[in-house]
Amino acid sequence: MTTSEALSEATLRDYIARFSNWGRWGEDDEIGALNLITPACIARAARLVTQGRSISLTLPYDAFGPQNGGFRPNPQLLTTATGTDHLGGAQDPLPGGWGPAKGFGYADDTVILPTQAGTQWDALSHIFYEGRMWNGRSAAEVTSKGAAHNGIEKLTGRIVTRGVFLDLATWKGVETLEPGYAITPDEVDTYCADKGIAVESGDALIVRTGFMSARRAAWGDYSGGAAPGLSLTMAPWLYDHEIAAVATDTWGVEVRPNEIPVFQPLHLVSLVHGGIPFGEIFDLDALAVDCREDGVYVFMFVASPLPITGAAGSPVSALALK
Amino acid sequence: MTTSEALSEATLRDYIARFSNWGRWGEDDEIGALNLITPACIARAARLVTQGRSISLTLPYDAFGPQNGGFRPNPQLLTTATGTDHLGGAQDPLPGGWGPAKGFGYADDTVILPTQAGTQWDALSHIFYEGRMWNGRSAAEVTSKGAAHNGIEKLTGRIVTRGVFLDLATWKGVETLEPGYAITPDEVDTYCADKGIAVESGDALIVRTGFMSARRAAWGDYSGGAAPGLSLTMAPWLYDHEIAAVATDTWGVEVRPNEIPVFQPLHLVSLVHGGIPFGEIFDLDALAVDCREDGVYVFMFVASPLPITGAAGSPVSALALK
Amino acid sequence: MTTSEALSEATLRDYIARFSNWGRWGEDDEIGALNLITPACIARAARLVTQGRSISLTLPYDAFGPQNGGFRPNPQLLTTATGTDHLGGAQDPLPGGWGPAKGFGYADDTVILPTQAGTQWDALSHIFYEGRMWNGRSAAEVTSKGAAHNGIEKLTGRIVTRGVFLDLATWKGVETLEPGYAITPDEVDTYCADKGIAVESGDALIVRTGFMSARRAAWGDYSGGAAPGLSLTMAPWLYDHEIAAVATDTWGVEVRPNEIPVFQPLHLVSLVHGGIPFGEIFDLDALAVDCREDGVYVFMFVASPLPITGAAGSPVSALALK
Amino acid sequence: MTTSEALSEATLRDYIARFSNWGRWGEDDEIGALNLITPACIARAARLVTQGRSISLTLPYDAFGPQNGGFRPNPQLLTTATGTDHLGGAQDPLPGGWGPAKGFGYADDTVILPTQAGTQWDALSHIFYEGRMWNGRSAAEVTSKGAAHNGIEKLTGRIVTRGVFLDLATWKGVETLEPGYAITPDEVDTYCADKGIAVESGDALIVRTGFMSARRAAWGDYSGGAAPGLSLTMAPWLYDHEIAAVATDTWGVEVRPNEIPVFQPLHLVSLVHGGIPFGEIFDLDALAVDCREDGVYVFMFVASPLPITGAAGSPVSALALK
Repeated sequence: MTTSEALSEATLRDYIARFSNWGRWGEDDEIGALNLITPACIARAARLVTQGRSISLTLPYDAFGPQNGGFRPNPQLLTTATGTDHLGGAQDPLPGGWGPAKGFGYADDTVILPTQAGTQWDALSHIFYEGRMWNGRSAAEVTSKGAAHNGIEKLTGRIVTRGVFLDLATWKGVETLEPGYAITPDEVDTYCADKGIAVESGDALIVRTGFMSARRAAWGDYSGGAAPGLSLTMAPWLYDHEIAAVATDTWGVEVRPNEIPVFQPLHLVSLVHGGIPFGEIFDLDALAVDCREDGVYVFMFVASPLPITGAAGSPVSALALK
Repeated sequence: MTTSEALSEATLRDYIARFSNWGRWGEDDEIGALNLITPACIARAARLVTQGRSISLTLPYDAFGPQNGGFRPNPQLLTTATGTDHLGGAQDPLPGGWGPAKGFGYADDTVILPTQAGTQWDALSHIFYEGRMWNGRSAAEVTSKGAAHNGIEKLTGRIVTRGVFLDLATWKGVETLEPGYAITPDEVDTYCADKGIAVESGDALIVRTGFMSARRAAWGDYSGGAAPGLSLTMAPWLYDHEIAAVATDTWGVEVRPNEIPVFQPLHLVSLVHGGIPFGEIFDLDALAVDCREDGVYVFMFVASPLPITGAAGSPVSALALK
Repeated sequence: MTTSEALSEATLRDYIARFSNWGRWGEDDEIGALNLITPACIARAARLVTQGRSISLTLPYDAFGPQNGGFRPNPQLLTTATGTDHLGGAQDPLPGGWGPAKGFGYADDTVILPTQAGTQWDALSHIFYEGRMWNGRSAAEVTSKGAAHNGIEKLTGRIVTRGVFLDLATWKGVETLEPGYAITPDEVDTYCADKGIAVESGDALIVRTGFMSARRAAWGDYSGGAAPGLSLTMAPWLYDHEIAAVATDTWGVEVRPNEIPVFQPLHLVSLVHGGIPFGEIFDLDALAVDCREDGVYVFMFVASPLPITGAAGSPVSALALK
Repeated sequence: MTTSEALSEATLRDYIARFSNWGRWGEDDEIGALNLITPACIARAARLVTQGRSISLTLPYDAFGPQNGGFRPNPQLLTTATGTDHLGGAQDPLPGGWGPAKGFGYADDTVILPTQAGTQWDALSHIFYEGRMWNGRSAAEVTSKGAAHNGIEKLTGRIVTRGVFLDLATWKGVETLEPGYAITPDEVDTYCADKGIAVESGDALIVRTGFMSARRAAWGDYSGGAAPGLSLTMAPWLYDHEIAAVATDTWGVEVRPNEIPVFQPLHLVSLVHGGIPFGEIFDLDALAVDCREDGVYVFMFVASPLPITGAAGSPVSALALK
């Protein structure tokens, strides 16, 4: 119905008016659409685990990640104790008054991790629209001390539900959807019908565009540049289908360049007003191989963010369990 | 049989000789006892999820954690974009050539995270004995660049199995076991018999001493000081029962001071030679409440570390699913 | 004349009205009282260097510094290459396509440095009063990206002038002035008369309370707690004497608790409105020894901050040259 | 005499044998050639300051520096308090029990600084040759805890001497010497004769190739790539002239590619064995302009590194004072 061609800033305001969940789960709510994940959703998801297989959906956190040294550096691992120190006798005696090593040695390290640099969940404090974030709270609550409300730690333990895998790249027979390609409700519906998937309330939508596969060898502008992704018109669809969370293999979930002259409008509708956490830079290639082999595109999705108090996002060890 | 009184450095060498798994899963193995988690273990664990409840076992990562500013600082969250910036007009236009904000605002941040500072898994590269780590590899492989083998990223996706909860503090009717208290096989067996738990190959053992509850309000020397924990005599028990992973609510799993004049000898036997990942600083209080209520002490345990390439450990969002 | 007893919030407003330098050096000025350091000041300072001695005024930047793990951690040094790696053969071949090492080895590291954690200059962007900083600029210019104006980098190269050393602890024959002790203009004038020092326009005032000596072995609440320091009544004195910069061996220059119920009022008058950079946590003990020996309390003071773009402060290798 | 064409690995060994200073200043010495800076050198340098001008030689430390995101990231400034927070009311009351703000606001931040990322001095613990560093100490002393000896903090306060400026780019009438161009003793002698400079014991040599000017707009492989620089044949010259320190506007002082198949051989002779600190990534463009104007190529050089305990290098606010 609505096509990209017809979209405008008016669409954004219309969508916000019609598809907001502010107040739906109370004035104090800080977890948004994750409220849709009921105990029944968790139990139903667990019943999908019959083969006993765990597939990681997380890109390694290291200097070879997709960031190019600008706004967000790649994760840096720095050491404070090493095996070479142990071998060189530098750990005898041990620090901290722990006494002689007598054969004991250890390695230790620190990681500097921009929370949005790799596979990550956006917190509901990550994005604002006209001074407000999820559930109408003021952006003034997100300061240099972090978020007083809606921080990522509120989502810890909450992202356990059925995952529905939209491997659009494989389905369309391409290595990757092209930058600028907008994924629409029609296409998603056709895909689900083709796979025999009935989307249910509380599901997590996991979308593979193939863009990570195509750029993995040489990231270029993978992070921050043009990309395939969800059309703004997916906002009503996500709302109507009561999707709890969305994750993609791109840096920003949405199609880039955006379809209207506002930056990341789907974030503004579905994350800020819908309360749906967005997962970005998920590595879905192993899952794609697995699903091509067994033909099963639904699974138990366990992807709980770290409780980094007040953070705008978190790295995550996301798993598809079958 | 073996009592703490009879333990000596000779015990350590004897245990290493008898309870090593080096070579058991091939010369190239880097995941150790996690090999014991078979597909059947994962499927069996998932069948325990009937009530649809998710309980987080992770302490918040922030400045109020248990580290006291010495060897390992608490996690630090530092901001690169805030809601107050958005409100102050500092994000219009957006960086990166993204153009005018038109109502769009965002928060962003970086976390500095010593990998062993909070709830965490020890990698099999974390501990050495006489120059060697898990599976006989040289400590020389763990340099300032991180671990070439046995790094924490090898364990990502692997820690999904049945969790067996030993809430010893509640069971003994104390707030906490005292520093120096050694948990022995006899006690564990009595507990399991009392709860009707049959430990099985591939299980994860989750041990609550109550020490975190007792120190949470004022950490003091919680990290690095004397603590209750597993006796060295648990090494044969862990081996015989084919335990895949062990986690506790203390900083170092083992009783401190150690029972013999070698630092952390259980690490040397069960982690270095047994290949069992140790989980430390787990927050087990919510789980204790939950288990007291439903009387169910086994659950699906999902606790996959982040794939931080080459790291000696990783924070983790650990979950008990029922 | 004015005594501490008579001070009030009205004094603060009065001082601000009378001792502000806003606009004095033009609307665009970002270096404040450092404008008082003329070429003649620099040349005059250099002429004081006759003995050829350099005395460092900087505390080591390391984990043993005065911060206690709360708001500002001590500096952390983390390694990325070590001599033990070199010895262990881990650097052969070298990274970056640099080829075989052939005997070459190296160490490398990264420091995480809270800019206010140790010996440091406050930037003119460090403090605000009622929404404004030096020269009337809005606090809105200091965001998560740093300071658009008045950042510490503007002061680089500028702090080269005559230093006048007020070693009040030695002069009064005490190890340290006590916390809460307020240094007044009368006392400073008496000291200068006693030492035969005529303070001149563009001088830097270096004040030793002895508080660092007294707390160095066990810092306690040295950082952030009660401390001896300058009285608010020094504000007119600093203005009248055209002092270019002030540094002390305490964490905050001013006496703490403050003399009026406003936090750090001397900062509000002399830094925010006077444009005088404040130097804190300077280590003046070696200088005290040196001056007791030669009786010379004026010297060339070279203490240029690092040009950390937009930072609110900077570590500094401050030198007294004689 | 010796030309690049005739150089070989044998030259390296010959130079090390002939131009080493190990033991020259005692077995315990940790400052190397800085011993050559006598009180007379300092006083002589100060006498050069007649015009009262201070010229910064340091590149800004920020995200726009010469590192390209690989081995060493550019400095990162991260905020912990901002003016926008102050304006947004987020600082009232103040943290730390400091009470109500009453108009007081502040900014604070942390810098993550790879010690070799920008303008910096190499410590005498930065480079090893066959397991040894300056004065014969073992590389085993440089561990994940930093350098037990020869760390950069030993050089704090020591680099105050006469600077001799070799602005070779301007002198030769080029924007920059080309990558691979080796600066030889003959050329340096000719330059000094032309400028009427008599190099003296204890001088610091400041060499401008022009390479930073040429690459500043687009750094490319400035850091780590091919570069103009000192020939290995400068080693005898530096030794014979008793140069205390050398700094250039390139990333590694030496010509790259190196003249012999050993990585950075001049470091191995003159830094490891000669004990001469090397300064890298110095920004010498403002100095070049200044010297072209007044024709004075010698000055007081004050460039004291921060005392970062055990570090392999340090950022520095280097000044030329005239």
